[in-house]
This record gives sequence, C-alpha cells and structure tokens, in this order.
Amino acid sequence: MAERSTPWVMRTYAGHSSPQESNALYRRNLAKGQTGLSVAFDLPTQTGYDPDAELARGEVGKVGVPIAHLGDLRALFDGIPLADMNTSMTINAPAMWLLALYLVVAEEQASATGVPAEEVRARLAGTTQNDIVKEYLSRGTFIFPPAESLRLITDLIAYTVAEVPRWNPINICSYHLQEAGATPVQEVAYALCTAIAVLDSVRASGQIPPERFGEVVARMSFFVNAGVRFVEELCKMRAFGRLWDEITTERYGVSDPRQRRFRYGVQVNSLGLTEAQPENNVTRILLEMLGVTLSKDARARAVQLPAWNEALGLPRPWDQQWSLRMQQVLAYETDLLEYDDLFTGSEVVEAKVAEIADGARAEIARVLEAGGAVAAVESGYLKAALVASLAERRRRIETGEDVVVGVNRFTETEPNPLTADIDSSILTVDAGVEAAAAAAVRAWRAGRDAAEVAASLAELKAVAATDANLMPATLRCARAGVTTGEWAGALREVFGEYRAPTGVSAAGAAGVGPADSALTELRRRVAETGAELGGRLRFLVGKPGLDGHSNGAEQIAVRARDAGFEVVYSGIRLTPAQIVASAVEEDVAVVGLSVLSGSHLSVVPEVLDGMRAAGLDDVPLVVGGIIPDADAARLRELGVARVFTAKDFELTAVLGEVLDAVREAQGLAADELV
Amino acid sequence: MAERSTPWVMRTYAGHSSPQESNALYRRNLAKGQTGLSVAFDLPTQTGYDPDAELARGEVGKVGVPIAHLGDLRALFDGIPLADMNTSMTINAPAMWLLALYLVVAEEQASATGVPAEEVRARLAGTTQNDIVKEYLSRGTFIFPPAESLRLITDLIAYTVAEVPRWNPINICSYHLQEAGATPVQEVAYALCTAIAVLDSVRASGQIPPERFGEVVARMSFFVNAGVRFVEELCKMRAFGRLWDEITTERYGVSDPRQRRFRYGVQVNSLGLTEAQPENNVTRILLEMLGVTLSKDARARAVQLPAWNEALGLPRPWDQQWSLRMQQVLAYETDLLEYDDLFTGSEVVEAKVAEIADGARAEIARVLEAGGAVAAVESGYLKAALVASLAERRRRIETGEDVVVGVNRFTETEPNPLTADIDSSILTVDAGVEAAAAAAVRAWRAGRDAAEVAASLAELKAVAATDANLMPATLRCARAGVTTGEWAGALREVFGEYRAPTGVSAAGAAGVGPADSALTELRRRVAETGAELGGRLRFLVGKPGLDGHSNGAEQIAVRARDAGFEVVYSGIRLTPAQIVASAVEEDVAVVGLSVLSGSHLSVVPEVLDGMRAAGLDDVPLVVGGIIPDADAARLRELGVARVFTAKDFELTAVLGEVLDAVREAQGLAADELV
Repeated sequence: MAERSTPWVMRTYAGHSSPQESNALYRRNLAKGQTGLSVAFDLPTQTGYDPDAELARGEVGKVGVPIAHLGDLRALFDGIPLADMNTSMTINAPAMWLLALYLVVAEEQASATGVPAEEVRARLAGTTQNDIVKEYLSRGTFIFPPAESLRLITDLIAYTVAEVPRWNPINICSYHLQEAGATPVQEVAYALCTAIAVLDSVRASGQIPPERFGEVVARMSFFVNAGVRFVEELCKMRAFGRLWDEITTERYGVSDPRQRRFRYGVQVNSLGLTEAQPENNVTRILLEMLGVTLSKDARARAVQLPAWNEALGLPRPWDQQWSLRMQQVLAYETDLLEYDDLFTGSEVVEAKVAEIADGARAEIARVLEAGGAVAAVESGYLKAALVASLAERRRRIETGEDVVVGVNRFTETEPNPLTADIDSSILTVDAGVEAAAAAAVRAWRAGRDAAEVAASLAELKAVAATDANLMPATLRCARAGVTTGEWAGALREVFGEYRAPTGVSAAGAAGVGPADSALTELRRRVAETGAELGGRLRFLVGKPGLDGHSNGAEQIAVRARDAGFEVVYSGIRLTPAQIVASAVEEDVAVVGLSVLSGSHLSVVPEVLDGMRAAGLDDVPLVVGGIIPDADAARLRELGVARVFTAKDFELTAVLGEVLDAVREAQGLAADELV
Repeated sequence: MAERSTPWVMRTYAGHSSPQESNALYRRNLAKGQTGLSVAFDLPTQTGYDPDAELARGEVGKVGVPIAHLGDLRALFDGIPLADMNTSMTINAPAMWLLALYLVVAEEQASATGVPAEEVRARLAGTTQNDIVKEYLSRGTFIFPPAESLRLITDLIAYTVAEVPRWNPINICSYHLQEAGATPVQEVAYALCTAIAVLDSVRASGQIPPERFGEVVARMSFFVNAGVRFVEELCKMRAFGRLWDEITTERYGVSDPRQRRFRYGVQVNSLGLTEAQPENNVTRILLEMLGVTLSKDARARAVQLPAWNEALGLPRPWDQQWSLRMQQVLAYETDLLEYDDLFTGSEVVEAKVAEIADGARAEIARVLEAGGAVAAVESGYLKAALVASLAERRRRIETGEDVVVGVNRFTETEPNPLTADIDSSILTVDAGVEAAAAAAVRAWRAGRDAAEVAASLAELKAVAATDANLMPATLRCARAGVTTGEWAGALREVFGEYRAPTGVSAAGAAGVGPADSALTELRRRVAETGAELGGRLRFLVGKPGLDGHSNGAEQIAVRARDAGFEVVYSGIRLTPAQIVASAVEEDVAVVGLSVLSGSHLSVVPEVLDGMRAAGLDDVPLVVGGIIPDADAARLRELGVARVFTAKDFELTAVLGEVLDAVREAQGLAADELV
C-alpha cells in the first residue's frame, strides 16, 4: 500500500452580490474545511464593464461578484491572507486586469504584516483562467479579437513565469468545450490545440529565453469537465496526460519530466444537471467527481463541484456545503487515497485510453494543418464541429438512446420535500445590489487622483500599440484606481471588439437533426402556417445581455432551421434595443430569447416594451433559460407567450409550441395535428 | 468495448405497518423502475410471535411488515405476479415458514390464472435469507439452538433444490458481520465458514444424491455489506469470489464453473450512516455502492440501498425513491456497464485481493480446526473476535484516526433545510397499527378449521422429532391457516430456545479500549463515586423488546467495564419485567437501555414504571438508540435521566454522563473534573 496521498485542493465556485457578501461566504467556506477559493465574477466584470454601464443592467452581482477596482478586490479578500491561499479566478478577457488587482492587494497585505513584497509574491498560488479560445467557442465572455487576446495571454504568462513563479497564468479549458458538445476526443484535441497555440505564441514573442521555456510549459494548467460517463472520463484524463507528455517532449523539447506533468483542475459538469427530480443531481455530481479522482496517475489537482440545485437557481450556502462535504467524504472517509494507481495494468482502461489518444492525435493533426486553434476559430471550423456534436448528443437524449433519469426515463416521482418551497430552496440576489454597486463605483471614481488615472490609462494605450508586455502598465492602472470598465475600454479603443462565428449555419449544413416523425410533422405545420401567412416563417433567436452561454440558443436555432423556419441568429450579447430593431428589420414571425444568467426579469420586459413600442403586436415573444416557476408566471403575466426551462428538453416539441404561439398571435385557429 | 451488461436487480428494503400498506408501497416502487422486491418483516414476525403476543408489544409493524398467516402474505403480494417477480425476504429463524406461505400464495395465483402450479414454482425467483449463524453473532433474531437451526436450513435447501430450482434458499450474510465489527478478512472468512457448515450439513443429511450436489452449491448465495472504504470493498468482493471458487472445487469437487459462480446481493452499510449532517449519507451510500458494482467480475446480482435518513427514523417513499434513482443513474446514465472488467490486470487491485484472500484462508483454517462455524459460535470465539474488532474501529473513530465527516471532523454546518421539519422528514407508523393487527389475527384464528390447524401442528411437532424434512409439514400448516406464532411455538416446544454468547466478557479480557486520558479520568471518577456510595458501581445494560441489534449495547458494556463499572449484561430480548427484576436483584446503580427498533416510546415507560413500583428511586434510567429529538424530550419528561443517540459517538463521554446521572440520583454534588 502506498503512503496516503494528499487530497486535491477543494474549492467551491462562489461569489455574488458584492465583495463584502462574497468575502463573508468565502470565510465561512474556509471554516468548513474548503482548502482553496474559486472566484465567480459577474458578467459585467467578465466582459469589462463597470456596474453603472448600460450593458451591465440586470447583470450586476448575479452570476458572480462585481469587481470594479482595487477597493473591491481588497474587500473581497479582507482577512484572507493571500500568501496562504490557493485562489482560482474564472476570468478570461480581463484576466491580466484581475491578476494585477490581486497582486496589488497581496502587496498591501505584505506591507501591513511587514513581510517583503517579493516573498509574498513568490508564495502566491492560484490560477487565472485566461483561455480566450474557448470563449469564442462556448462561454462567450470574450472582448477582443483573437490575435489581441492571444497577445494578452502571452504577456500575462511571460510576466508570471518571471515574477509570480507559483501562479498558473492560464487554465486551458476543455470544460466549456464539453458543455458546447465536444466528444472526449474533441475535448482532448481542441484543448491541446489551444495549448499549442499559446505556447507557440509565447515562444515566438521572445519574452522568455529559450533555456527557460521549460518553466513556461511547467506553468500551463488545464481546466476540465467531467460528465457522468465516468469510465470514459477517467480514460480521457489518462489520454490527456499521455498526449501532453508527447507534445511537450516532441514539440517543445522539455526534458525535465516534472515540467511535463499534466496538471489540471476540474469543475464537474453543470449543464448536465437536471431540473426534474433535482435530488438526482447529487448522484451525478458524485459520479462525475470519480472520473477525475479515481486514478492516481491522472488525478485532478483541484476540484470544485456544482450544487444539486444549480439548474433551479443560485445555490445557498448549505447547498454548497453539501458539495464540499462530498469531496471530504471521498478524500477522508474512503480509502481511495491509500492506494497507488488502481488502473495501471488494466487492460480495459488501457484500450480505451489508446482509443481516445489515437483519435485526438488525428484531430490535432487536422487542426494544426489548417493553421492551428486560432485559425480554426476564425474559420468557424471548431464551432461547427462542436455544434454538430451537441446536436447529436441532444438527438440521443431525445430518442432515449442516452438515458437521463427523471427526464426521458423514470419520470414518476413522489413530491419532493427539498423543493417544496422553491423560493427558499435557492438564493435570490437582493434587488438593491445593482444600484448600490453603481453608486459605489461612481463614488470611487470621484475619490481618485484624476491625473494619475488619466496618465496610467494613456500609458496602457500607448503600450498596447507596441509589442511590449502590458502587465506593468496594467499594474500602474490598478494602483491608480482605474476601473474594470476603464481598463477594458482603453484596450477596446486600441484592439477593437469581436463577434465570433455562431457555428449555426455550418452545423445545419450537416443536417444532424433527428429524422423522426415528430420533426416531419412539425415541418409540415411550419410550411402550412407560412403559406397561410404568405411567406416563410422567420424566427429571431436572441441572446440579450452579457450572458455568453449560447449552446441552448444555438441548438434551438439549428433545430428550427431543420423544421423549416428561416432563422435569424446574430450571436450573443445584444441589447434589447438591438433585438427589437432586428425583429422589425427582418420582419420576423416570432422572437425567442435565451437567458441563463438570472437576469430574465430585467431584460425580457425591456424587449417586450420595445416590441410593443415598435408595433410588433402580432409577433409573439418566447423565452427559454434557467427560470424559477414564480418568475415564469410573472413573465407570462407581462405578455411572454411561452416560457421554456430545462424540463423542456425535446426541442421539436418546444418548436411546436413556438409555432402555436405564432398562430395564436396571428389569430389563426389551432392547426390540425396529423 | 464489451456488450452492455444487464444491470443488477434493483431493490429497496421495505415494509411497515400492514400487508396492505406495504403492498401499496411495493406497487409504487415497481412503477418507478425497481426490478425486484425486498421484504422487511417486523420483529415479531422475525422472532416467531403473532401481533397479539406479549413480547410483540410496541414492535408490530415498526421495522417491517407483520405477517402472521397466509392471508397476510396474500395481501402483501396482491396484484404482484410472483412468477415474474424477484423477491428477497429478510427472514431467518422462520425462513421455512415464510417460504411455505410464499409458495402457497404462488400456487393460488397459478390456479387463479390457470397456469399449472409446477410451472409457476419452477419460475419462482428470490431469496430467503435463512442464515442463522450471523443471527447469533450480530442480528439477534434467532429462535432455536444452533443444531436445530442448521437442520431447518438444511431442510429448506434440500426442498428448494428439488422443488423450486431458481430459488436461493439461503443468503449467507457477511453483511451483519461487518456491522458487528468484522474486518474485510474476518467478513470473508466467517461467511465462508458459515457456507461450509451449511454445505457440510446438507451433504451429511443425505437428502440430495451426491451426483446432484453441484446443484446445491450453485444455489448458495451471499448477502454482503459494503462500507465506505470502497477500494478495499471491491477487492474484498474479488477475494470472496476467488476463495469460493477454491472451496467449491477442492472441498466439494464441483467441476462445472457455472455452479461455482460466486453470486451475491448487497445492502450497503446502514449503521455507518450519520445522524449529524445526514445529507452526507447520500454521498456515503453512493460510494458504498461502487465497491460492489465497479468490477464486472465481482459485481453484485442485486443491490438495495438504504435511505439518507435511516439514522433519523423510518424513510418516506421519496427518500427510498432517491436511493433507487442512485442505482438507475449509475446503471443507465453512466458508461460503467459498457465495459469488461476494469481491474483485470491492475497491479494494485491484485495485490490487495491477494492480501485479503491470504488472511481469510488462514482464518478459515483456524475456525475449521476449532470445529467449524457452529462450534465457534457456541464457544463464543466468533462473537469475541467481532466485539474486539468493533471496539478497535470505534477507538479509531474516537481518536480521529478514522474520519467521519460531520461527526469527528468538519462539524461546522449551515442549518439543514432537509431536516428543518424533522417530523415531516421521516415516516411515523400509525399508533393504531398494533391493535388492528392483533384484532385481525384473532379474527383469523376464529375463522379457521380448528381440527386441521391442530392436526397440522401435531404433524409438524412429530416430524420435528425425527430426521425427516420439515417442509411438507410446514406447507400443510400454511394451508391450514396456522399463524407464525403457532408454527414457531410448536417448534420451540420440540427444539427449545437459545441464548447466545454476548462476546462482552471475552472481548473485555483483551483490553481493547483506548488508553487515553479521558478514560483514565473517568476511571478515577467511577472509583471515587463507588467509594462514596460504598461499593463498586453496577451498571445494568438491557436490550428490551425483540430488537436484536446489540452492537451498541455491547460496545457500551465493554467500555463501561474498562471504566471500572461492574457490568451486568444478559444479552438481547428481555421483557421490561425481567430487566426490572434484574436491577433489583443485582442492586445496580444505574440501568441503561438500548433500543434501535423505534419501540422506545412503549418499552421505556414500562421499564420506568416497573423501577418506580420496585422502589428503585435512586437508580437512574438512561436510554440510547435511534430516537428522534421530540421523542427524546418526551422520554426525559417521563423521567429518563439521559437520552443518547448516534450523535453521541464518544463512548467515554457518554459514560461520563451516565456517572453524572448516578450522582444526581443519589443527591451527590457534581464531582470535580481534574
């Protein structure tokens, strides 16, 4: 028997409302035995807006904590010594900015305790997610175009390798690729292609001398997803490590095996959690954790688990505690950590690992031949591949080939006491949070040295126009009290903004929808209703607000086109006004909004009001997302024609209801079902 | 990749109140996708008493369903075709009786549907637990002495092998050995020793011709426990199979490998579930299931999972549904069943399996040399070994060497919404159940053919006095409308009753208590209080009622003796009157009762009243068991000095409070703690 292994770092992805409230939550989680922090930022922070920006409306403090400046980060970590902490920050486009704030707060803590700043900096452990490639493909919180994004990543890596040696400057995310539909082979291949793009860029930048390049490789880490097919998942992780060893040896010539180690953290699959019989999510979360913990040779360094009720709304502290305790039971009560690798020598596991590794090697070669990860983002190749895989996965669920307990099988259920009082079984963010944050950032701006703010932002822009590392200028901005919106705004001026391919048209061309009778029937109905109304039915699919989780919207768009709608989908992050304008311009028959961030009660009414003001009285509005029952009732009262949630997993049935809504709004009789 | 394996049979151990209510529960569970039934009988049924017997008071319908006669079993399976069902019956001493009732109901169903009775009988699948050896060691629902018990087992096996070929006539239980403290090596060894004792007895009986003995071996099945140390558990199951193959080949010369297959069902560990932070039990239950499902070559044939709130009281249908859904998610959502054995070739697993198998081989040899399992029960060797192992396990928990999340580590917690309303988070059995069952059995007796009842019971007794198989006479009794109490009573007359060794004195001699300062301090206090009261303090530990789960009482007894009390413990199944008489006779300083069956509100007041009537006003009564908070408050109101539940896992601290209770009752000042 081996010596008992040290457990992975245990974190909970957490943050909401305000830095003060999030700080209290962090302290409570640490007191319960959590061994690291994982900061969830709100969407304005993730997309580079201050809480008082127009695009921030309805989103402040919702899916994470708003951090607008140094004072906010100070409050967030008040009483938490950063030198002893292991902090993961889910931040991408503004990763450099948040790391700068973090470093300055660590300096302040050092000087308050009399420890030399360099000593504290040398001890700082944690991660900035900082993977923009997957933002274009799935998560959607990118800001700048690909080349400029890669430059920010490169500068941050070069800086930390030299100055903050224990920091993980990037977490290459296969996580969101899986959410976007990736098969295990695609997940491994595309994540490694991203890593290659980043390493190639760092090497080409010349910022790190060739003899120290092994240190860059050693600091690369990964952030993976683990689905419920846990045997495949554990084989995937073993394949990941095997390929990483090959790539770092062969492509980058790293000879020190410690520098080639495949290091990864994990959040198990959130989007696979169900709204139906949500207590079963506890089972799923735990099984998903197995894929990344069972085999010692491919075990996660850090694990964060979602809560059972994430599909219903924002988890409460007790829900998060439950997920933390899952990790503790596995790590401390079971004997798992007493053994060496359980699968070394296993014939079945070796065969599956080889299968995934072979598939991924081939796919990597394909992407590299086509110019690498960034080119494959810009061409839409990667996005289309993911949308097609996700459509196939949905097809298997809809046909019942893939079982989802409580959803497409075993749906009989007793009344659930856990959700008997739904309002108390999730956390709601105080409505006053947004106004308070907006007032606070205005007060902060008023109290700064305006000249230094202007000078530091001017320097930032000047450096951005050169090839020099952006980190020193960013640190100056942080110290000067610049805000998140100002830092991002300055770089937007220099770099420009970006709209990513949606993957919808290319995937549609592949015709991946299920060829079932329900779809055939829907096609007939769509065509007939179109004929009655004098033309092909246009369906505007909109993603209002800052929420970039577009997989649901994309799948609806693909299926709607399969059903004969003409689909108008312009991707994420549209204002309500843009959506209304597009509806008028394109003369659509129906508007569908997808909102997963919890901001539905503010953005949906804005779109409704805009449509009324524009005279679109015969155009129904339908909404899908993570929407508690009470909110759904409220939206229907306001005039939303249909509200869909995770329960409505059959896309063809959803589109049938969308068609019903069109007929109702047009005063047509219900059509006959054959 | 292998073809997808068929999932194990999924059951829920269920039954309460009445045959009618249990039947409704079974039908509901089957509609939810459960694939087999597991009948929980109440304690009167398990120990051979009718609902109107004096010893049955407070126990009717509590931990299972009362079955007093053919009519009850008919009602229990009303509308459930037995020919298509897979039914496990947790019944031991009266196993032959319950199987006879089952066979007669199956015959009745056959005749109602016009299917020949032999055809139905040939299709009947299921299990009678029928392992008496472990009843002496742990579970306590034995009735007859060892030799006569083994004869009943033998007759049942011989009958089913000939007449009900798909039935598993016995489930050798390692389950309860683990609950009683067995290490994996002990669990494997003692269960296999029991199997050897049974097979030797069947062979010696001459009821099965030697050339058909392979069929007997083929029908032996096992019922195992799976604790949270799931890696060890899966290795244990592999070792079990390996040794079974050796024994059946070498000792019984079975050449057909299919007849040597190790077949087992499992209930994962219930007694390890915690009352503190009970939501963590979901995690434990699931991890425990892994040990018996992960490896295809040693996978359970049938699994039943406890509910998360079993440590709090009787689970509701929703709680049981949740546990069933755990099995379904593992079997249908994950990819586990898509693979061949994951551990074939694994070096780590092979080493651990070999270690357990080697240890078990040596222990089996030791028991066989000492005369086999029955002799080792009678000598007290097995019980003493288990009590010592359990004391060691408790020591590791008390010292924190073994972590129990929420109990001895990570005890900080948010308020738990799952148990906010404790009364609604468990099921309570209607107080009228017992009176109704008693009235019903009296009505049943009145409606029978009295002459045939008398004749069939006379035949049963006559056959019992010979070597002939008891099954035909038992079937005649079943058809005649004999009751459970009458059948068992007739055999009690012929066979006598039995009291098993408690294991307490032998284990105490080993001195296994923790040599810690708390215990040293308690010893001093016990000695001083004894001196003040003029003699060594006597502590009567009593198990009132039919509940045979004596592990807790035994551990308290062992620790109390380590602390310097003189312990009076006469084992299980005492009436309140016997306990009071013993308290008077032995001149004890304190009486402690252990009640796990839920009958505390009826048996504890009886003991209290008896003690008052006997003038024992300065003798405090303390109680331990599975006791909801509201009931504990009620018991204290009635005069119980202290109530302990699973939360009170530190035995030394519990005994400190027992001593406080003695001092209070004697009017002594609180003694000084050093």
